Amino acid sequence: MEADLLGEIVLLAAVTFLSALQNVFFAHKVELESKTQNSKCFQRTGSPAFEKVYCANQNCTDAYPTFLVGLWGAGLFCSQAPAAFAGLMYLLVRQKYFVGYLGESTQSTPGYIFGKRIIAFLFIMYAAGVINYFAIVLFGTDFLVHIQTVTKASSALLLIP
Amino acid sequence: MEADLLGEIVLLAAVTFLSALQNVFFAHKVELESKTQNSKCFQRTGSPAFEKVYCANQNCTDAYPTFLVGLWGAGLFCSQAPAAFAGLMYLLVRQKYFVGYLGESTQSTPGYIFGKRIIAFLFIMYAAGVINYFAIVLFGTDFLVHIQTVTKASSALLLIP
Amino acid sequence: MEADLLGEIVLLAAVTFLSALQNVFFAHKVELESKTQNSKCFQRTGSPAFEKVYCANQNCTDAYPTFLVGLWGAGLFCSQAPAAFAGLMYLLVRQKYFVGYLGESTQSTPGYIFGKRIIAFLFIMYAAGVINYFAIVLFGTDFLVHIQTVTKASSALLLIP
Repeated sequence: MEADLLGEIVLLAAVTFLSALQNVFFAHKVELESKTQNSKCFQRTGSPAFEKVYCANQNCTDAYPTFLVGLWGAGLFCSQAPAAFAGLMYLLVRQKYFVGYLGESTQSTPGYIFGKRIIAFLFIMYAAGVINYFAIVLFGTDFLVHIQTVTKASSALLLIP
Repeated sequence: MEADLLGEIVLLAAVTFLSALQNVFFAHKVELESKTQNSKCFQRTGSPAFEKVYCANQNCTDAYPTFLVGLWGAGLFCSQAPAAFAGLMYLLVRQKYFVGYLGESTQSTPGYIFGKRIIAFLFIMYAAGVINYFAIVLFGTDFLVHIQTVTKASSALLLIP
Repeated sequence: MEADLLGEIVLLAAVTFLSALQNVFFAHKVELESKTQNSKCFQRTGSPAFEKVYCANQNCTDAYPTFLVGLWGAGLFCSQAPAAFAGLMYLLVRQKYFVGYLGESTQSTPGYIFGKRIIAFLFIMYAAGVINYFAIVLFGTDFLVHIQTVTKASSALLLIP
């Protein structure tokens, strides 16, 4: 592909690469734990430790396509750098969720959904970008610069735990 | 990205955005139901109501990447508007499937697969577009206009229940 | 889309189409087996034959987004033909894994992960392409031609069982 087109997706691609690596890491943990099970078939049930790691991996896998859609939609239609930054934050939150899930017996229950704030941030960027595109076509008004300014400023808020 | 390139994916992006929102809605239902369970860990088994909603969400999640591939393949290689329309119909069918799954005790069993006709429609568009591309390169014949006409006309058939 | 842009993704799109078809084939097998179950609801547990096919399908579905990310990242950022070839090999491995899973009682246990070598190959291509892009921007050095030569030569190694 031409370099200028690649330049508009390279940060998103780098974050996506890291997320895929993390997926492989999670799957590797499940694989390791399943080796300790006696059953011949790879089962979805087993010892508590295995169930936990399987469950944590499953929850992360379920949310993965939604995350990818948010990341790329926000990056392509609104602004690349804040979307990639939010994606990185999501990977950190996911890592924390996965690790926390494995040893959560003493803590409060982690739910099915995690990283709500980051996903919401990506979806708002995505929606703003698409609506802005239709506004350009229909009314000829382009607010993308203002949206990008607000986005860049507010992406720092994701750092607050 | 340049506006003309965005214009060729904006309808697909809008449908994808809605589908991701629907994913979040499904996950939220699972989250809500899991709160009523007594177990400390988020389990994949529990009360019948929880099992149903988990199962419905799982089936929708399993089919999601296949749907996205069909939607974007059909939209990029064949024709954007009919693909986006079929995507919208798929979201309606999926909503009906999810809601129907939760209260299906008196009805017939919903299967693992849903929206077969829409997925088949998207896949045929996808295949026609890719084959047409190779036909252009190999034989120099371009049938895309005819394919698009047929596609636009036949997409209305998806409205028949 | 313009033909030259489509030409850079058409092989990837063809492989993705085949993989989606394979997904539908797997889901169809699950659907068929679930019909033989007595329960009214589509359950995730049941007879051993059903559990096996469900489990095999689940493992394939879990790995699918990671595979797609590797395929498209390697194809866009590095070299299209070797990535598409590796994708085809992955589909063969996946087919073998799925079939082997259903009748594995006499063999050794298939694990959770499969196609490790192919996924690693795609990820290395992906990483090399992204790193090379940053090297162009930062240092002005472009090694993509050399990377592509190495990639093309080493993709033949995937044929070794």
